[in-house]
Amino acid sequence: MKIVEKNKGFELYLQKKCLMKHTIDKCAIYVGYGEERMAMYRGNFKVEDYVIERTPLKYYHIHNNHITFRRYEGDSCGALTLSLIEKDNRLSIYFIECEAPINRIWIRLHADKEEKVYGCGEQMSYFNLRGRHFPLWTSEPGVGRDKSTYVTWLADTRDKAGGDYYTTNYPEPTFISTKKYWCHVETTAYADFNFQYDDFHELQVWDIPKSIIFETGKTYLELTEKFTDYAGRLPKLPNWTRDGVILGVQGGTDQVSTYLDQALESGIKVSGLWCQDWEGINITSFGKRLRWNWEWDPKRYPGLDKFIITLKEKGIRVMGYINPYVVNDGGLYAYAKEKGYLATRPNGDIYDVDFGEFYCGIVDFTYPDAFEWYKDVIKKNLIDLGLGGWMADFGEYLPIDCCLKNGVPAMLMHNAWPALWAKCNYEAIEESGKIGEVFYFMRAGGHGLQRYCTALWAGDQSVDWSLHDGLASVLPAALSSGILGNPYHHSDIGGYTSLHGNIRTKELFQRWTEMAVFTSLMRTHEGNRPEQNFQYYDDDETIKHLAKMTAIHVALKPYIDDLMDEAVTKGLPLQRPLFMHYERDKKVYDIQYAYLFGKDILVAPVYEPNITEWSVYLPEDDWIHFWTGSDYKGGDHVIDAPIGFPPVFYRKKSQYAQLFKMVANHNRF
Amino acid sequence: MKIVEKNKGFELYLQKKCLMKHTIDKCAIYVGYGEERMAMYRGNFKVEDYVIERTPLKYYHIHNNHITFRRYEGDSCGALTLSLIEKDNRLSIYFIECEAPINRIWIRLHADKEEKVYGCGEQMSYFNLRGRHFPLWTSEPGVGRDKSTYVTWLADTRDKAGGDYYTTNYPEPTFISTKKYWCHVETTAYADFNFQYDDFHELQVWDIPKSIIFETGKTYLELTEKFTDYAGRLPKLPNWTRDGVILGVQGGTDQVSTYLDQALESGIKVSGLWCQDWEGINITSFGKRLRWNWEWDPKRYPGLDKFIITLKEKGIRVMGYINPYVVNDGGLYAYAKEKGYLATRPNGDIYDVDFGEFYCGIVDFTYPDAFEWYKDVIKKNLIDLGLGGWMADFGEYLPIDCCLKNGVPAMLMHNAWPALWAKCNYEAIEESGKIGEVFYFMRAGGHGLQRYCTALWAGDQSVDWSLHDGLASVLPAALSSGILGNPYHHSDIGGYTSLHGNIRTKELFQRWTEMAVFTSLMRTHEGNRPEQNFQYYDDDETIKHLAKMTAIHVALKPYIDDLMDEAVTKGLPLQRPLFMHYERDKKVYDIQYAYLFGKDILVAPVYEPNITEWSVYLPEDDWIHFWTGSDYKGGDHVIDAPIGFPPVFYRKKSQYAQLFKMVANHNRF
Repeated sequence: MKIVEKNKGFELYLQKKCLMKHTIDKCAIYVGYGEERMAMYRGNFKVEDYVIERTPLKYYHIHNNHITFRRYEGDSCGALTLSLIEKDNRLSIYFIECEAPINRIWIRLHADKEEKVYGCGEQMSYFNLRGRHFPLWTSEPGVGRDKSTYVTWLADTRDKAGGDYYTTNYPEPTFISTKKYWCHVETTAYADFNFQYDDFHELQVWDIPKSIIFETGKTYLELTEKFTDYAGRLPKLPNWTRDGVILGVQGGTDQVSTYLDQALESGIKVSGLWCQDWEGINITSFGKRLRWNWEWDPKRYPGLDKFIITLKEKGIRVMGYINPYVVNDGGLYAYAKEKGYLATRPNGDIYDVDFGEFYCGIVDFTYPDAFEWYKDVIKKNLIDLGLGGWMADFGEYLPIDCCLKNGVPAMLMHNAWPALWAKCNYEAIEESGKIGEVFYFMRAGGHGLQRYCTALWAGDQSVDWSLHDGLASVLPAALSSGILGNPYHHSDIGGYTSLHGNIRTKELFQRWTEMAVFTSLMRTHEGNRPEQNFQYYDDDETIKHLAKMTAIHVALKPYIDDLMDEAVTKGLPLQRPLFMHYERDKKVYDIQYAYLFGKDILVAPVYEPNITEWSVYLPEDDWIHFWTGSDYKGGDHVIDAPIGFPPVFYRKKSQYAQLFKMVANHNRF
Repeated sequence: MKIVEKNKGFELYLQKKCLMKHTIDKCAIYVGYGEERMAMYRGNFKVEDYVIERTPLKYYHIHNNHITFRRYEGDSCGALTLSLIEKDNRLSIYFIECEAPINRIWIRLHADKEEKVYGCGEQMSYFNLRGRHFPLWTSEPGVGRDKSTYVTWLADTRDKAGGDYYTTNYPEPTFISTKKYWCHVETTAYADFNFQYDDFHELQVWDIPKSIIFETGKTYLELTEKFTDYAGRLPKLPNWTRDGVILGVQGGTDQVSTYLDQALESGIKVSGLWCQDWEGINITSFGKRLRWNWEWDPKRYPGLDKFIITLKEKGIRVMGYINPYVVNDGGLYAYAKEKGYLATRPNGDIYDVDFGEFYCGIVDFTYPDAFEWYKDVIKKNLIDLGLGGWMADFGEYLPIDCCLKNGVPAMLMHNAWPALWAKCNYEAIEESGKIGEVFYFMRAGGHGLQRYCTALWAGDQSVDWSLHDGLASVLPAALSSGILGNPYHHSDIGGYTSLHGNIRTKELFQRWTEMAVFTSLMRTHEGNRPEQNFQYYDDDETIKHLAKMTAIHVALKPYIDDLMDEAVTKGLPLQRPLFMHYERDKKVYDIQYAYLFGKDILVAPVYEPNITEWSVYLPEDDWIHFWTGSDYKGGDHVIDAPIGFPPVFYRKKSQYAQLFKMVANHNRF
């Protein structure tokens, strides 16, 4: 770290990279005061801010490793003091002193015009964040997420649910710059990172953060490795998950048995049955909803306990579902209410949240007793039942006006909630001694998931081809969360949300399947309206297609296994942006719809309908086309890509080349 | 005026009304610096502001009639000095000194929670402005103007043209408060008046204004009178305009003659023929557009000069059309280009503006020679031809990046343009000695119209029943502009914009006609797509209906004549909010879809389809229902309101009661 003073200002460097430039005209820090107006409707937030004051901190004084900023020259009490501590090449800038009435801060980092930035959690519209600003607030992702589409407009006007390019279940105040540093702001407050400007990034936080942390790296691989040194890493996904697809089916023991038998008879490799309705169901206008009182429903699933054992003997696990809310007519709610485990309104009443025609209490994870109790619910009701895992759904809905046991304003706990929810699940498994055997997948996120979330899924895509909410949107989601240390990404095969005229087609399902092969996990979902949407089990051709695709996934197990070892040791994601391995190629920095699956496989999913050919850019290397065995060099290529043969290449020099060749030989054009 | 100091702050009073409260925590003034991003597409603006600094001016010092504000206590140079001058009970606060880098100011006025405010130019969605903020920037009004409607969404996504509740051709930084004062900010900069807060109004201006002016009044009538003492007043509309409807027809001499003969034979009272295509036409995808080179087109209108004389002898005037742009393939453009009369780009090229498939130069009204030249074009080509008047269209499109002769940034001239355009028209008539005989009607506006705009029309409503862009929207438009001293308001009978599936119906046309009777002027318009939309001349029933309605309008001439005298002497509008005459009635302050036509007629236009009955609120008085002669008292009433009998009442004690009774007797149920 080095601070260079010149022209009544200073420049801050870390490993010769300029992180901050301060002059009297273009300040590094602005502070102020704002009054927000926020309204939540079923997890969708309307946010308006009235900034009453925003003052540049023009004057500064450096003493030892402290920088004290002042509003004006004679200002006797410092407006803000930073303490800069470098340790093992990691620079932490702590905000150690601050005037009282400040609740907004804008931190400007130095930027180059050509610089690109990535991250900010799981971003589903744009991987390169430059040119836009990104509000960071966990919420429903939105239906449509593109104000120019009719679906988004319908979702907005009917349900306030259209979302926008930045709405995400998993925001995080962390990014990686092509200047080769990572930056993380230690805060759970509402934030808005603005990468619109040519010569600076402006990080807005609605609180004084604890610190802002930087670390440089020689390569992007090293940056993710170093960031996960800081943020934490995860164990491998259970071995059994690599033995086939997890079928998302429901309807009760008989029903799911029938699906399983059909699948196995048809040659589909099955690793698990995910029965989200293990606890029973509710019917609402959105579709079938689950019964949010997390106990086995023996009426819907008679003999589930024995069924689980029987399947386990066949190498197939049963998975369930849970989320951090308890429905207000259930036994868990009654118990939690009595014990004071639920978040309240200011008047002490339980804060029931509207989830769409039913209401739930919020388990107060800031209350250690409540946290432990809910962990026990998971242990007893899910793990002890024998489930191999579950969807750990939701986490984004903490209302900003609820009261919590720890006394911290809900505005500050809202973004912290997903990681708390992850931790509750993680500890339940850990304390049960089931790490590496049982796992859960989440959509909500925040900083901390790197340590506590065994797997991420991309949330509720629409069952369509739209860039911002369909199949394609899964790709930037995987890449952005991946480089920030979430190695295991996957999505609902076929998408989830069928609303406003969107109905899943066979083609969409098949293309989604083909992409899922080259991710950490294959899992289907029937969607929110199963009857109206295409299901694989209704169609022989799709069953065959799925069988083939699961076979490829399973055949790749040795490779995937090794990738997961890399995730454990280095935090590297399975799905990687091309620049992670080809950083000298300037063209790859804006590719967000193709990726490397590990170092050796390049995947360019088809995300449009009616496609027989697909344009693929290959970075300079020797590549083999998976389905023909043909050699390719770097450059732009148009590839035959009929259903069943997605554009996939492997490196000729890969140590797994023989494996890939063998897999491919079984599945030639 | 009185300034009371207390608690390290002050309160400013005018006639015992508190206008401003300043404390160290809640400052009266904030200053700062912003960088706007603005994009214009065919008169629709996208505006974003990046506020870099916003500093409360906490400290102040009063010396004589000056208040000097400072950012901090030891600040030796004042950040801003105000000079307060009261003269004849009018308080002008001048901004006489200011630090250089300020380009944003936020002025907080004291407000009461119950207070309501009105004005801000011609507001088409909301008459009472409280609870919302109103950007003040002249622009296209928008198609739909309501983000929840499909039409607005289509207009937005196809043409960036949807608009919003505040988009208007005529914004003005002036309002009237129910605390009984008017307030005007002397500026033509972009402004945004925010009436969202309980205890203050915040007036944002993107420049240091020259002054802010206040005057109190005992009644609302007095407030408008006093404001027009300041802003100016207009002559009466020509006498001939009260002799019937101005028929908006086109197609050439033969065609319009045929329409006129048909109308006269059918008993329609006709005062004028408005032939907007007198200068020829262009065909675009929007519909037929005019040829923007302002010369009589003798091919389309053979013998127009003689036709004008012939009709004038029958008491019927011919009207034309002009706007402040010249098409780039016309003779006026070529001449103006040679003379340097057109606005330019920074590199000196002519700044051609896209008007939808054709491009035009902007006559530079800041260049006195250009202004005089264009005035001469009006005199020679329109007045000398014998036209009785014209639509003086547009004025909202001044691009913010064009260069003008006076050297003032276009950002500051944009909002000034409509009044300059009005002045050019006004002086052309005045210098021709035709005031009171020739007149024009405008849609664009700004402060200054009170002196220079002979008549206002409500712009381009959609041909539908929508509140924000249909028939109903004309009413708040008339009331808001009216109280600010624009007495003569009218609208296109039947509306104008037929896009995105909106097609004018017979019923809409008839309801609009019934409303127009009780305004300053009746004028029809064929709309942007005449062939696809309902036209009165295609339908016998509607011709009869129109004949009856014009007869009523003409029969009311003595009354309307007297109202116009009131406009001349006091600036009072013909269409008045109910509170102007019934200010003790708390219920009337939120009525924006009914009005008083002068003191003695109450009109509650039907603005929904398929109506036979209509709810009307009458303030406490003795009322006579126009069509039945029945007596009514104050209160809520449900009134029969079939087509042909709009809900209209007159005051029993009116000095015109006999006239009204006679008119009514001819038109009983």
